[in-house]
Amino acid sequence: MIHLTAAERLINYLHAGPKTAVAVHDPSNMFYLTEGYTGEGLVYISEASRVIITDFRYTEQAERQAPGFRVEMTETGRNHNRVLSELVKAEEITELRVETNWLSVDAFEDLRAAVGEEISFVPLKGAPQKLREIKTPAEIVAIRKACDITSEAFNAILPKIRPGMTEKELQIELDFTMLRLGADEFAFDTIIASGENGSLCHAIPGSRTLKNGDMITMDFGAKVGGYCSDMTRTVALGKPSDEMRTVYETVLRAQSMCEDALMAGKTGEELDKLARDYIDARGYAGRFGHGLGHSVGIDIHEEPRLSQRCKDVLQAGVVITVEPGIYLPGVGGVRIENTCLVKENGCVPLTTADKQLIIL
Amino acid sequence: MIHLTAAERLINYLHAGPKTAVAVHDPSNMFYLTEGYTGEGLVYISEASRVIITDFRYTEQAERQAPGFRVEMTETGRNHNRVLSELVKAEEITELRVETNWLSVDAFEDLRAAVGEEISFVPLKGAPQKLREIKTPAEIVAIRKACDITSEAFNAILPKIRPGMTEKELQIELDFTMLRLGADEFAFDTIIASGENGSLCHAIPGSRTLKNGDMITMDFGAKVGGYCSDMTRTVALGKPSDEMRTVYETVLRAQSMCEDALMAGKTGEELDKLARDYIDARGYAGRFGHGLGHSVGIDIHEEPRLSQRCKDVLQAGVVITVEPGIYLPGVGGVRIENTCLVKENGCVPLTTADKQLIIL
Repeated sequence: MIHLTAAERLINYLHAGPKTAVAVHDPSNMFYLTEGYTGEGLVYISEASRVIITDFRYTEQAERQAPGFRVEMTETGRNHNRVLSELVKAEEITELRVETNWLSVDAFEDLRAAVGEEISFVPLKGAPQKLREIKTPAEIVAIRKACDITSEAFNAILPKIRPGMTEKELQIELDFTMLRLGADEFAFDTIIASGENGSLCHAIPGSRTLKNGDMITMDFGAKVGGYCSDMTRTVALGKPSDEMRTVYETVLRAQSMCEDALMAGKTGEELDKLARDYIDARGYAGRFGHGLGHSVGIDIHEEPRLSQRCKDVLQAGVVITVEPGIYLPGVGGVRIENTCLVKENGCVPLTTADKQLIIL
Repeated sequence: MIHLTAAERLINYLHAGPKTAVAVHDPSNMFYLTEGYTGEGLVYISEASRVIITDFRYTEQAERQAPGFRVEMTETGRNHNRVLSELVKAEEITELRVETNWLSVDAFEDLRAAVGEEISFVPLKGAPQKLREIKTPAEIVAIRKACDITSEAFNAILPKIRPGMTEKELQIELDFTMLRLGADEFAFDTIIASGENGSLCHAIPGSRTLKNGDMITMDFGAKVGGYCSDMTRTVALGKPSDEMRTVYETVLRAQSMCEDALMAGKTGEELDKLARDYIDARGYAGRFGHGLGHSVGIDIHEEPRLSQRCKDVLQAGVVITVEPGIYLPGVGGVRIENTCLVKENGCVPLTTADKQLIIL
């Protein structure tokens, strides 16, 4: 098996000839295609060239992070679009693919004016994102490491949760634990939702203090080597109410059912329906107000999704979350989420922490 | 003095009549105009209406955070643009101002197709950003609090810096200290650059261990109540070389000189030149490779700037950084940065930590 670089995979995917070039501005796509660059600027890829166009602040970093790329530095009077235009002219490019789903209306107008109206500008239509759907072995290693950190952080935080501490304090402890365990940064802002706040799926950890009888939902992720993990657990602080215990069992059953069913060949729609029908049938219709899951990689939310609208057939190598939830306004909520690697005949949960109800 | 809401200030600034509405998608502008909303979606403002258009996940949050706004929830078959189009029709709007500097080419096309070609779409041209340049007393309170946290965090971290610890470990300690002191989150990814890494102005803290004789640059900021602070200090671990000591004194002199000169009526260009000429004259021409400063507010980088290209006259109420630096590749670097409030006859440094060279 010949190892292709991400830039080569893109060129192949686009069936781009020598007169076509690609200008990439989305930082996640830039990171993917350069296999490591995290600075600003843009990436230019043609059959003949691999170039990072950036300013003074990032040139040394670009050379270190992306040895396969040439670095072109902007100067006063020679900005990013000017450098791009020079490359396009030197290589006699006639078609430039651009990210119309990322570039602002104004930025695209500036680019077009600088490069010249005589070449055609064609939307890249999420081609890098499409390649990013199937993770390479090296990407899976990074995601697995990020998932290990979240599972370990969860186990480490449990003995520290006690009545009287605020959601914010719990968030700080959890975040710091992820960093100590090796996270480069957080995949997203940690969600801590306790008691009645549990009904806000995107709650911001606040000054509410944890009380005996609370259910506490923790949704958090680490980023390692540029790749994310995502997990959610809901735990009980002291004995929960019978109502919340039933909610927990329902969410857990839905989550496990979907994880068991997850494999290549299924659609996101089909798996979402499995969870939704089960939750609805148990008397919680309308209380699972979001999709079942999303892919995870360089970005915390990638395609494909497990949702009512996603008819794409899942392929092996997709890394995706399975995260049903039930939210009862004024009462509370439960969500359980694993990040899973899709295989031909099943899936491997990369999140390994226990899913059974933990009563602290 | 009548207190105007941010939405009212925008309507006044635009001289918008009853047939003009504004659709805002940039999250920082949404936060500013709603005075508190941090979720997804878009904001619709006309003379008659203040509306947040969002999905199920954020409706409860929107009602809590922006009591002055009506919340419109999207549903299956009724997406954000559909709701926007209903509002435009109901109010007989003929001109819709949109953020062409924020909306992607594709997103704008979708919006235009949904709302209808018969109304005119006019660029908002950064009007909310323009309003955001002059901070209100409440905004200054938030920024001052964020600045206090960074100054305190700096003082608290000094005794913990020791040879053998990695840049990454120092970053974690510093970040955690900011959170413990009340930061909601970080204003940006903390930069720790030690020894020869000091020549990378945007260094990512890594596995390099701190050594005796190192200069260590720490550039970090807190975010509190939605507002940022930004500060940089360079400290010496043990006795620094004579060369680096001279570099430090030069940067410090340039920084203090500019802070002393900073006041309403000056231009960014003029202040940048003051620092640059001084640094150049001391034998470091070409080694101060970035602008002197940037405004700080909801975003870490706002307008106006202190730079060679900024001819805007500074007004009282601008909050801006003063941050000259000298970078010597292979040797190291020094940067000193305060966040300052511009007044009629001078400025108030909101960063209060000592600027003299600290030798640990």
